[in-house]
Amino acid sequence: MRRTEYPSLIQELVRQLRRMPGIGPRSAERIALWMIQSDDARGGEIADAIKRSTTGIRNCSRCGFFSEQELCAICSDPGRDSSLLCVVEQPTDVLPLERTGAFSGLYHALGGKLSPLDHVGPENLRIESLLQRVRSERPQEVILALSADVEGEATASYLGELLSGEGIKITRIAQGLPAGVGLENADDLTLTRAFSGRVVFKS
Amino acid sequence: MRRTEYPSLIQELVRQLRRMPGIGPRSAERIALWMIQSDDARGGEIADAIKRSTTGIRNCSRCGFFSEQELCAICSDPGRDSSLLCVVEQPTDVLPLERTGAFSGLYHALGGKLSPLDHVGPENLRIESLLQRVRSERPQEVILALSADVEGEATASYLGELLSGEGIKITRIAQGLPAGVGLENADDLTLTRAFSGRVVFKS
Repeated sequence: MRRTEYPSLIQELVRQLRRMPGIGPRSAERIALWMIQSDDARGGEIADAIKRSTTGIRNCSRCGFFSEQELCAICSDPGRDSSLLCVVEQPTDVLPLERTGAFSGLYHALGGKLSPLDHVGPENLRIESLLQRVRSERPQEVILALSADVEGEATASYLGELLSGEGIKITRIAQGLPAGVGLENADDLTLTRAFSGRVVFKS
Repeated sequence: MRRTEYPSLIQELVRQLRRMPGIGPRSAERIALWMIQSDDARGGEIADAIKRSTTGIRNCSRCGFFSEQELCAICSDPGRDSSLLCVVEQPTDVLPLERTGAFSGLYHALGGKLSPLDHVGPENLRIESLLQRVRSERPQEVILALSADVEGEATASYLGELLSGEGIKITRIAQGLPAGVGLENADDLTLTRAFSGRVVFKS
């Protein structure tokens, strides 16, 4: 007697679902069986939503954020402050910043960060188009909102150098203690940066 | 300035992914962005696997287990012992039993259990086809492998009554202490059933 398994179509579905981030073998099997056992068309509806959005979503031709049109909702909003240009690594970095409500300017997503070990150089990022935007749109300030890691530092340095001759203000978001964290839980590098980035409190 | 959100195709994808069991809003968003950001066709491949298996998988016409053909792999395996017929609630109950290696007979999935509160009566389950199978296949023993809850009890009673005139042995899988659990962690009902179901150890 051979070992009974699910039919191959189900096994293939479980294999595919396991590719999704955060989905282990048990979850994948549970989801697959849930899709197959339903009388309604929920599996089909999910598959359709995946198809529609993987084919219908593109990157905004100006800033790189997700969009269904040539220009994204932010770039086509006349109420945004075009004198501020915030540079992020990924299009997924845009919404976390938007949710803070702290920024009302425009964005530019590089599509990654400089990382020689992963063979990511300036030519692999949307850096040339950033330079073009800076020259044509003439923002007053370019804000670098990049990761606080080695590659983020390298990318910030590179961009700082590149844009230094353009006659605009270049800033970088602050590094320091995260909200709600006490000094005893902060690592050395965070504390060092928080210390060197100290701001005038009262004078 | 209006609150920026993802394009509606992405929001719809997140909504659809959230329907899947065990997937919360954060996981759904993470999976959706993972699908959209990839250069390869992984989203499309997953969607295809869902479509193929929701349309290509049926229930075995004999036992109700999942199958790509009219008869499932178990029912069409001549090596199975057709004198033993194990009654389970759902087709998903089959593989857990198969994995134990303790059973080599055939199955019959009812498609649920009797539950008046949920309007599930005998006519909503594959009980008539069970009776037909018992009469035509003449197994020596019907093993009830149903849930150890109120509805499982009711279903077992009903089936016991229904099959009592068929001249076959009707058994039910044991209820008692789960493996690895000490008495101090077992609930009253489990202990009561374990006690009343005690078996001769040495005589």
